[in-house]
Amino acid sequence: MPRSSDSPPRTGPVRLGPTARTALRPTADAVVAAGFWAARQEVNARVGIPQGPFLLESAGNLHDLRLAAGEERGEFRGDYPFMDSDVYKWLEAASWQLGRLHPDSPEGRRLADDVERIIGLVAAAQQPDGYLNTWFQAGKGAGRYRDLRWGHELYCAGHLIQAAVAHHRATGRERLLDVARRFADHLDAHFGAPGSGKPIDGIDGHPQIETALVELYRETGERRYLELAGYFVDRHGHGLLGGEAYCQDRVPVREARTVEGHAVRQLYLLAAVADLATETGEAQLHAAGERLWSAMTATKTYLTGGVGAHHHGEEFGGPYELPAERAYCETCAAIASIQFSWRMALLTGDARYSDLIERTLFNGFLAGVSLDGQSWLYVNPLQVRDGHTDIGGDQSARRTRWFRCACCPPNVMRLMASLEHYFASTDGRGIQLHQFATGTFRGDASGAPVVVSVSTDYPWDGRIAVTVEETPTDREWTLALRVPQWCTSFSVQRRSTERRTGGGPDGVGDPGDPESRDVEPCDVEPCDVEPCDVDVEATADRDGWLRLARSWKPGDRVVFELDMEPRLTGADPRVDAVRGCVAIERGPLVYCVEGADHPGSGLDDLVLDTTRPLAVKHRPDLLGGVTTVLGSGLRRPSTAAGWWPYPSRSGDGGRVTDGATAGVPFDLVAVPYYAWANREDGAMRVWLPTS
Amino acid sequence: MPRSSDSPPRTGPVRLGPTARTALRPTADAVVAAGFWAARQEVNARVGIPQGPFLLESAGNLHDLRLAAGEERGEFRGDYPFMDSDVYKWLEAASWQLGRLHPDSPEGRRLADDVERIIGLVAAAQQPDGYLNTWFQAGKGAGRYRDLRWGHELYCAGHLIQAAVAHHRATGRERLLDVARRFADHLDAHFGAPGSGKPIDGIDGHPQIETALVELYRETGERRYLELAGYFVDRHGHGLLGGEAYCQDRVPVREARTVEGHAVRQLYLLAAVADLATETGEAQLHAAGERLWSAMTATKTYLTGGVGAHHHGEEFGGPYELPAERAYCETCAAIASIQFSWRMALLTGDARYSDLIERTLFNGFLAGVSLDGQSWLYVNPLQVRDGHTDIGGDQSARRTRWFRCACCPPNVMRLMASLEHYFASTDGRGIQLHQFATGTFRGDASGAPVVVSVSTDYPWDGRIAVTVEETPTDREWTLALRVPQWCTSFSVQRRSTERRTGGGPDGVGDPGDPESRDVEPCDVEPCDVEPCDVDVEATADRDGWLRLARSWKPGDRVVFELDMEPRLTGADPRVDAVRGCVAIERGPLVYCVEGADHPGSGLDDLVLDTTRPLAVKHRPDLLGGVTTVLGSGLRRPSTAAGWWPYPSRSGDGGRVTDGATAGVPFDLVAVPYYAWANREDGAMRVWLPTS
Repeated sequence: MPRSSDSPPRTGPVRLGPTARTALRPTADAVVAAGFWAARQEVNARVGIPQGPFLLESAGNLHDLRLAAGEERGEFRGDYPFMDSDVYKWLEAASWQLGRLHPDSPEGRRLADDVERIIGLVAAAQQPDGYLNTWFQAGKGAGRYRDLRWGHELYCAGHLIQAAVAHHRATGRERLLDVARRFADHLDAHFGAPGSGKPIDGIDGHPQIETALVELYRETGERRYLELAGYFVDRHGHGLLGGEAYCQDRVPVREARTVEGHAVRQLYLLAAVADLATETGEAQLHAAGERLWSAMTATKTYLTGGVGAHHHGEEFGGPYELPAERAYCETCAAIASIQFSWRMALLTGDARYSDLIERTLFNGFLAGVSLDGQSWLYVNPLQVRDGHTDIGGDQSARRTRWFRCACCPPNVMRLMASLEHYFASTDGRGIQLHQFATGTFRGDASGAPVVVSVSTDYPWDGRIAVTVEETPTDREWTLALRVPQWCTSFSVQRRSTERRTGGGPDGVGDPGDPESRDVEPCDVEPCDVEPCDVDVEATADRDGWLRLARSWKPGDRVVFELDMEPRLTGADPRVDAVRGCVAIERGPLVYCVEGADHPGSGLDDLVLDTTRPLAVKHRPDLLGGVTTVLGSGLRRPSTAAGWWPYPSRSGDGGRVTDGATAGVPFDLVAVPYYAWANREDGAMRVWLPTS
Repeated sequence: MPRSSDSPPRTGPVRLGPTARTALRPTADAVVAAGFWAARQEVNARVGIPQGPFLLESAGNLHDLRLAAGEERGEFRGDYPFMDSDVYKWLEAASWQLGRLHPDSPEGRRLADDVERIIGLVAAAQQPDGYLNTWFQAGKGAGRYRDLRWGHELYCAGHLIQAAVAHHRATGRERLLDVARRFADHLDAHFGAPGSGKPIDGIDGHPQIETALVELYRETGERRYLELAGYFVDRHGHGLLGGEAYCQDRVPVREARTVEGHAVRQLYLLAAVADLATETGEAQLHAAGERLWSAMTATKTYLTGGVGAHHHGEEFGGPYELPAERAYCETCAAIASIQFSWRMALLTGDARYSDLIERTLFNGFLAGVSLDGQSWLYVNPLQVRDGHTDIGGDQSARRTRWFRCACCPPNVMRLMASLEHYFASTDGRGIQLHQFATGTFRGDASGAPVVVSVSTDYPWDGRIAVTVEETPTDREWTLALRVPQWCTSFSVQRRSTERRTGGGPDGVGDPGDPESRDVEPCDVEPCDVEPCDVDVEATADRDGWLRLARSWKPGDRVVFELDMEPRLTGADPRVDAVRGCVAIERGPLVYCVEGADHPGSGLDDLVLDTTRPLAVKHRPDLLGGVTTVLGSGLRRPSTAAGWWPYPSRSGDGGRVTDGATAGVPFDLVAVPYYAWANREDGAMRVWLPTS
């Protein structure tokens, strides 16, 4: 439902400040109208977000706010000092959602009522001096700012600020923003470096306040918030919290060589590093962002884009320490990775960052919410054994309605509700399409608006049709398409054409279509800054962009077609955990095999027969409609293992022979990883032994 | 130093009660006199145990006891409610050590003084009603028996009881035993099933009291203690602690199908299960012990004998979930495994249990203490990457002088100080040698004493010479030698000979030795209950014993020679973590490669060239004297990894080619795993990629 036409531009989570210097800038008014992500956003809007108030009531969060507001008496119910943040993340999600609804629609009114009610509670719970944390206000813990390592007061403040910024951007209302500013002012009055006259030289054990304060600066123009964010970022790593890597306190981020400690904490901190580099132009922070992102991506990221190898401490492991089964890959860490990467994408203009975002969105992030939007995964392993033997609470690989530590569900909601803002950008000389989804995206060409519409059935189909909807006629600009890192073959066609009034669903005719014109081959490779009148097989540009620069006319169309053949993917040999295995991928999707598709037999003895080809079959009936990949499996003969599972190989000269090729053949069905655990709590594997 | 000849028989940690029904019985007066384990025991006696009082003083344990005793004022210093147990484990270790010292020797007097002083503290800290726990007596926590899940009161009581039994067995003194009995009586008055009239129906979150109470029954003959142990064992698994697997409360042990939860807790509980089956003859408990031991050994045990795959919860993973790098393998869990296995070995007579003990002793357990006896490992991984990137406290793979949670060091001390008691047994018809060490071991032949001496340089050399020192001349009895699980080839020679007065170091001549007589080949295979007049290559008996039954004369000698060729060992293909790798083993020792032996180059790119033979070199100068295994390594060409570590394999039909055989050759040196991390905190691997 469209918003009223006199609304201000609809912006998202990262809106740069006036002095920001970046390669790219986010665009306003992005719309994802149909297709894969629109369906996920619809579930989020119809099921995910509306259930929030009920769940926050059941878990006690709202009760505890009412206690703090003096509106209710009773026992404090929260188990942790960070439970207010669940409320704030939900408010942020609901605010982004409000931004896409007409305020007079029934859904818009209903959601606005919920939001206003809960904002009222938050405002009432705030103490006169601006402080707000129900845990400490209930007398639990050591007292205000007395346990910064574990108290999460600034972390909660950060989520409050982010919610307030979202609410203000989406609705123009000031009420929650006022609450946030008062808390931010309270923090600014209390925290500062020695000699600043502020009483506390301290940081929060869980970063989040830093990136939030930068965003508050962007929203309010108040430079104190930016400076406070910079202070917090730079005081990490000096032992204020005992020097623990877990709390991002072992080494200053400017000196850090790799990501470490609690993954979510690390990545929220790095989002702030990118924010500060963006707003201040500080080269050292810019370099730290690039260096740490590269270290993370090259050595500590799972195939799914998930991060965090250790259950213990929810932390990054060592380089290449990426166990499939004990992957932690917290859903929140995937979200934090996307937030960090998006800021780096804007800062640098490098398409790699959006490559990682795509991979993380379609796999490590999306697995965190069930297809029906009603249950969640906290951890996202890449392997579950037969018998689904993992036992445990939040950290089990079972979809759960809500968690005792419920950080992930509202975090998914807020990203999903603002997802379109991560899909396109402008550099002032055109538009960059980072992600591919049917919708409308807006850019800028030397001050003139540029609008393109996209039509695609991605990720099931590799054809992405881009139509120029609005363009200045007096100047050249560049349409930049990200060539995905996974893509080894693509083609692009441009058709200068009059606006069609009928035709295929994507508005682009077949090669023989009489409305297609001006199709000329072009042998520029890579297709670069020069205009390209197309039908070309090309490789990606050095920085991952295919740039089509020319004077465009309304109705001009580009068809970008990515080869979607399924592929087998290996791993750097230093990834010990998956030696001798491959994964199946297709397009941006990582695939897995699930017990549900192989009834009556386990997955632990499975071997992939790589001598047989893979096939593809779209299954509209399965898991909400997925393209499956069909392969040939071999089941190792069931061996009576004996009492000791480590046989001597001495007899055959030390050569290891698994005897796998002597297995029993069977048809192997792979489904997208994001859709796993939607049928049963069964076995699953991404990495498949080859012999 | 020998004890006085009028001492009672010196017994160890498991002394069966009068009604126990087992296949084997422990023997008294075992002595390990020289060789590998004697040297480790010597370090324990000279360095390990004497440093205990100093370390317990530094860490606050003794201070807190003085607080409880009213002998000192001040702040409680312990971080955990279980810190009394460190004192008790040290007292147990010191007590076993006292048992091997002459009470009038300077060392004996010094140690006895320390022990008596600390026993005095413990006795003074005990409350008038028998209760004793400094944490709760200091007013910390929820109050007596109010937090059984985490309070560790019964756990500490268990260690107190075990210390008291050890002290009584070793010295005959009653003082600590009285303290323990009073606490046990207090427990017996407070804990019982509904309807028993006891006020609390509860169990401790950390099992230990159960096996301790059985031992207290054995020491005192007081059947109430056995019954209380049985009550505690059977109340696990009924949700009294919320049903957590961590606390061994998810399923009753009689119904459990596999080991799960916190590894040390599981194994202390299972030691009690074996104890109860031993003392009561209950078939269901006997079967549970066998079933759970088999499940553990076949699916959840590392090559080193270590157990516990998860850092999170210090717990067992799923079947075959045995990651090398994130192996937890707590030193205490190795000790608990040995305790459980020894009870099962006695109960069943099956040599497999002592196979696992041997493997665990030489590898997973022994790695837990440094060669100099001064520092410790809490976790014992099978891989550490270049850069030794693991960061953390007790759970890091760095040797540490003491831990904040210092359960492991005194646990090592108590096992090491009583180790000889795990080496031999009797079934009333002879003697069984479970472990091979130079020393003297005693058995029983239908009531007549049997004594054998063993001489060996095991594990460096496979020759084990057994001499009959004392034997009845009127009856046949059986010398049973465990044929190790790892051994695929061995020979045995028996020589009926007059007692030698000179000759080789082991008292057994070379084949041509004129003092060797009666050497006759014997083609019985396996050498079974029949006497075997030898020179035979044989395989192990079905249950792992080589039995030599005959009428023996004093001075008869048997030379058992195990093939010590180094071997390459694989893993069941379901152990995903080590696919495509082998380990080097020799005799009972698991080997590893360490960065220290390969300066200037990392281990992460190492590949073992299995086409080249392994060689052996003894190095008296290295790591206290070790036999090294020399192999041929290939170093993978250093690849610029690029920014994404998951390359597509599609181009070559999906076949994974590591290109490993194209690596640069280098000389690979493997050292025994137990000796790792004694030179530097460097990289290490047990499992070596083969290509």
